[in-house]
Amino acid sequence: MPIRAVVWGENVHEQTNATVAGLYPGGMHKAIADALNLDSGLSATTATLQEPEHGLPEARLAETDVLLWWGHAAHGDVSDEVVDRVAAQVWAGMGLIVLHSGHFSKIFKRLMGTPCGLTWREAGERERIWVTAPNHPIAAGLPAYFELENEEMYGEPFRVPEPLETVFIGWFQGGEVFRSGLTYRRGAGNVFYFQPGHETYPTYHDATVQQVLRNAVHWAHNPAARIGNVTDAPNRPVEDALEPIEARGPKLHAKGEAGFR
Amino acid sequence: MPIRAVVWGENVHEQTNATVAGLYPGGMHKAIADALNLDSGLSATTATLQEPEHGLPEARLAETDVLLWWGHAAHGDVSDEVVDRVAAQVWAGMGLIVLHSGHFSKIFKRLMGTPCGLTWREAGERERIWVTAPNHPIAAGLPAYFELENEEMYGEPFRVPEPLETVFIGWFQGGEVFRSGLTYRRGAGNVFYFQPGHETYPTYHDATVQQVLRNAVHWAHNPAARIGNVTDAPNRPVEDALEPIEARGPKLHAKGEAGFR
Amino acid sequence: MPIRAVVWGENVHEQTNATVAGLYPGGMHKAIADALNLDSGLSATTATLQEPEHGLPEARLAETDVLLWWGHAAHGDVSDEVVDRVAAQVWAGMGLIVLHSGHFSKIFKRLMGTPCGLTWREAGERERIWVTAPNHPIAAGLPAYFELENEEMYGEPFRVPEPLETVFIGWFQGGEVFRSGLTYRRGAGNVFYFQPGHETYPTYHDATVQQVLRNAVHWAHNPAARIGNVTDAPNRPVEDALEPIEARGPKLHAKGEAGFR
Amino acid sequence: MPIRAVVWGENVHEQTNATVAGLYPGGMHKAIADALNLDSGLSATTATLQEPEHGLPEARLAETDVLLWWGHAAHGDVSDEVVDRVAAQVWAGMGLIVLHSGHFSKIFKRLMGTPCGLTWREAGERERIWVTAPNHPIAAGLPAYFELENEEMYGEPFRVPEPLETVFIGWFQGGEVFRSGLTYRRGAGNVFYFQPGHETYPTYHDATVQQVLRNAVHWAHNPAARIGNVTDAPNRPVEDALEPIEARGPKLHAKGEAGFR
Repeated sequence: MPIRAVVWGENVHEQTNATVAGLYPGGMHKAIADALNLDSGLSATTATLQEPEHGLPEARLAETDVLLWWGHAAHGDVSDEVVDRVAAQVWAGMGLIVLHSGHFSKIFKRLMGTPCGLTWREAGERERIWVTAPNHPIAAGLPAYFELENEEMYGEPFRVPEPLETVFIGWFQGGEVFRSGLTYRRGAGNVFYFQPGHETYPTYHDATVQQVLRNAVHWAHNPAARIGNVTDAPNRPVEDALEPIEARGPKLHAKGEAGFR
Repeated sequence: MPIRAVVWGENVHEQTNATVAGLYPGGMHKAIADALNLDSGLSATTATLQEPEHGLPEARLAETDVLLWWGHAAHGDVSDEVVDRVAAQVWAGMGLIVLHSGHFSKIFKRLMGTPCGLTWREAGERERIWVTAPNHPIAAGLPAYFELENEEMYGEPFRVPEPLETVFIGWFQGGEVFRSGLTYRRGAGNVFYFQPGHETYPTYHDATVQQVLRNAVHWAHNPAARIGNVTDAPNRPVEDALEPIEARGPKLHAKGEAGFR
Repeated sequence: MPIRAVVWGENVHEQTNATVAGLYPGGMHKAIADALNLDSGLSATTATLQEPEHGLPEARLAETDVLLWWGHAAHGDVSDEVVDRVAAQVWAGMGLIVLHSGHFSKIFKRLMGTPCGLTWREAGERERIWVTAPNHPIAAGLPAYFELENEEMYGEPFRVPEPLETVFIGWFQGGEVFRSGLTYRRGAGNVFYFQPGHETYPTYHDATVQQVLRNAVHWAHNPAARIGNVTDAPNRPVEDALEPIEARGPKLHAKGEAGFR
Repeated sequence: MPIRAVVWGENVHEQTNATVAGLYPGGMHKAIADALNLDSGLSATTATLQEPEHGLPEARLAETDVLLWWGHAAHGDVSDEVVDRVAAQVWAGMGLIVLHSGHFSKIFKRLMGTPCGLTWREAGERERIWVTAPNHPIAAGLPAYFELENEEMYGEPFRVPEPLETVFIGWFQGGEVFRSGLTYRRGAGNVFYFQPGHETYPTYHDATVQQVLRNAVHWAHNPAARIGNVTDAPNRPVEDALEPIEARGPKLHAKGEAGFR
């Protein structure tokens, strides 16, 4: 069975900005999903902010292996309930790929535990993305570097935790650098942040960017069944202890009482 | 100047449970602060849930080098505004030490980005805490292991991100293990989680536990000035680029316009 | 094509100790290879110390996806040339799984850069191995913990670098703990250390241990082509610079000269 | 008592190359030691390849808190015995700062467990070094970035393990990037790699570079006493077990017998 990816698009500038609409007539989410579907091992669909529950009802997330997230102008319009829902699915094993301006999305900030800021400049400058982890699955088949003639500059410091691995570092024509590809694990969920993708440039039509996205979906996919009750803190009563022990000392909790949260 | 520590205590069971009140007549927070103040390089005061703004107004946090956090029964009563405030200070450089049942505090979950659950058993069993990172500053002066004759069992899986370093692992009499001392960096702030400290046992009167706490405050202290505007994403306009570049391509943002959030 | 695993066995105690010979009539390496071959996606063969080049000539390593290493009494008899060869293959992308007493093998110490010591006791005590990274590929299908009624105690501190991930932690009946499953990346090669496997106990006949080994081979396999010339430091001459620059300042190296090593 | 630093210099090009001799009349090691001694909390001396035991006899290392290492042309002339000795001291708690071309030194490769290669170009191009971990102790007092008008290009992929923390990333005029400041822990020893420092440029006269070096010595200093017998694997006999157990099952080792290595 192919890996089931859902590409979530904010779908705002595609509707309001002629440049973006021209580059991505079906929306950026559709362009990304189309790129994923070039790989017969992947099966990608889309969801957008404007749909009920932003297109991400519980039942759909339960059948999503990897979620890709592109947002920019409307981070604040994403409901906290959906963010909670996505976070819980990541902890339980769903993969998550956060794209470009998604660094400021509620879901990314929630999972990172940091502000996720950076510096930026919209000048259409050249970015050269270097592979720092050769033969990482996300870099499979890639050359030592690839170039995007026009990208938005994102600069350090990128206010995220130390990653599990740094896969890419970007060089910008105007003099900045950026950790452009970072991996994290949050619970059973694999998380990848990938910096390219400003909406006024044709980044998602670039063949190498598309290859990275396909690789990343494969990498982020956790084939194990989702972990149930991932936010619980189960009590293991003394009579069920794995080694024989006797209860000692004063107790706070009456028998069978749930823990505090 | 000594390092300024604030010990935050929920201060609930000290008021409602005779065992806890007996063990910690001035509250657990006071016992911990007293232990810190045995070190002339530290200056510790206390704050509690019941005080206005939980004792943590902005001005006080600005003058706090390291915050210690003990909470259990009333995590939900901590105002989100104070949690936001503490998180921002951590990102800017304040140290944070989260104790025992604080694993489920709002601030710890916020900074970790994971559910922070575990398994537990209140049976007064023996815990033996092994140093896995000998000569780590937090383990300075410690033997290879130390024992607490009565502790609450906290068991794996501990649902936190991979730490920067694993400093302690606990062995429990009933058969479980737990990563009892973990370090993280969140922005410029050093974060340490330390598992011992169930309120019905005299854990914070234990000399080795006290030594760990003093060590941890020293380790968590970042002497640099706090980072300002840590949640910003500053624009670097093209005319100020460090290398000479010319703006190219279509733009989303008018000149001087702030970025989306 | 199945993943090609080679199980390297020291094959000393199988020849000299009746207990070991009785438990593993074909050698521990054969028992492990048989366990791997239960998975149709794996194809495992064996190699031993006593064979020419320890059974690991360059050509065979080039066609090995994942190497498993069990050694104990004869670490010093492994030729440095073979160790160099294995290290180079790992850096280029071969997976490596180091078992039990292999913690003191030349290859593991070489890749870790630390002494890799631990404490130990041969008392046939019970070990309970806890999964600390639920749904990690190496823990796929495993319960929360599994037990080995007789294992050699390996205790902390385990003198290795901080791992990429801690997958397992072992609880020992005699009071110790040990990080029993640790992942590392060394170049393009995935490295996994797995603690159980004392030769006088039937550990490799345990179904859960066998499952871990199969999982680990899948995890360690890097499907990308090996990286060539992984120990080189290529010069990028100024005339081939990706951005136009002119050579400036004094030079140490004449044009075309190789770098120092 | 000030932190005792020893700056080890290969001291070859200072003797054979007029440019290097002109820039560093007393040798690069002296220039670095002088920069460290501007800080009254540091006390730096020097050692060179040409001295007996390369200036690093056991007794001196035992009294060295932090060792800085600059080598380039003569890595192969460093005796393996001295490398072993330095590695053992690092594992026991000595700090180590590896500079520039020291990436290919025997000691750095030994501690990393990887080839430590990179790409390079000697063209006197501009490097701009960005702080990726603001308020890290090694970046204390630094601006967001600093520039070296002439440096040797070192480019990714840098074939080292994932670091504990990435403190600096370098931008090069010719189009490359490099992780210019990386931290590691090896045993009780803190290790920092810092990329700038090509011998034909005045890098070590740069005030910001000097500040980084002073910061790094403070960071790398582990005030705890060195760990003894750091390469041992002590037996914990069954009669001394922390929890009462009885020996079971067949044994490989007679009582009191040392483990295999």
